[in-house]
Amino acid sequence: MPEFFDVVLGQRAHRDLLPDPLPDEVVERLLLAATHAPSAENRQPWAFVVVRDPDVRAAIGDLTRAVWEGGARDFVRGRLGARLFADVDRWATGGLARAPVVVVVCGDTSAAEPGALAASLYPATQNLLLAAQALGLGALLSTLPTVRHDDLAALLELPAHLRAMAVVPIGRPARALPAPRRIPVRDKAFRDRYGRRW
Amino acid sequence: MPEFFDVVLGQRAHRDLLPDPLPDEVVERLLLAATHAPSAENRQPWAFVVVRDPDVRAAIGDLTRAVWEGGARDFVRGRLGARLFADVDRWATGGLARAPVVVVVCGDTSAAEPGALAASLYPATQNLLLAAQALGLGALLSTLPTVRHDDLAALLELPAHLRAMAVVPIGRPARALPAPRRIPVRDKAFRDRYGRRW
Repeated sequence: MPEFFDVVLGQRAHRDLLPDPLPDEVVERLLLAATHAPSAENRQPWAFVVVRDPDVRAAIGDLTRAVWEGGARDFVRGRLGARLFADVDRWATGGLARAPVVVVVCGDTSAAEPGALAASLYPATQNLLLAAQALGLGALLSTLPTVRHDDLAALLELPAHLRAMAVVPIGRPARALPAPRRIPVRDKAFRDRYGRRW
Repeated sequence: MPEFFDVVLGQRAHRDLLPDPLPDEVVERLLLAATHAPSAENRQPWAFVVVRDPDVRAAIGDLTRAVWEGGARDFVRGRLGARLFADVDRWATGGLARAPVVVVVCGDTSAAEPGALAASLYPATQNLLLAAQALGLGALLSTLPTVRHDDLAALLELPAHLRAMAVVPIGRPARALPAPRRIPVRDKAFRDRYGRRW
């Protein structure tokens, strides 16, 4: 069984996934973790659309490519190093749809105030990502496909009370990635008030 | 070392904490986990104000009580069972300030688009909560004190680019809590499109 801190400190965004399918039991284990996140008033204002159908995945891929080529690429270029940019570009123009499973995480506006939704939805999404890492799978969180929300909602036949807030492709990683690089805690933490460095 | 799925599946919101102080090493371990969350473009748009000063904690407590008594209590009453409501009421009218450590998680609007901030901030907050659970500590995520954001920002001397988005009191739990109750995955998940039950 994987140790908690090994999983958390080793989490990476995996853009390069193998097409091997994931069995139901594995998907259920990931979703069990996601549904155990905390939420305001324990209202669990989430729903998960698990997309495996190649046509639906391809349509999500097309939609993501349209957002990317319609402005996001130009915005992001220059903000990322050349190598990371090339990775993201490959992912946004086809890589996403090759993941065997794409989970669309939806917020339920009938179960939580719109302003409180993100504080419940993204912890559940993070549990999903961490559980994938714990099982040796690769995943990442993207909000890019949600930019064209109406198109995504139509594709998934979402009712009006559900809002797609994150898209998480999951599969076996094509390659191992080293530990993530992070700004040290001492540069991100303060004592009692802002400005008093940790 | 705690196992990943034990931590994730056992996470609870702890409102009743002992006042025993937490050493720096423990706080740093929690923040190390928080800073290892993913973020858009790996920009890590977060800052953590670790409040231990009793006066600052009391001021956050007063502010939370004011939000609670100024409308939130009436809104929440009737939405929760009597026992949970009584717990939350005790917490919002004094319990919060008795936690030895209160971490205010801030989003950095200079490092991420406002629309992308929540998708980076709440995964980091969830890592913080899970790490507390992994170390046998109690914690919870509240956005209640952020309702009076200007007052909270003044108290913590936050610069204009930081936005307090979550408040996380942490300490040793006064009592053990049973495993959380959650709606089953089969009632929250769909295959390929909404409506096709898992």
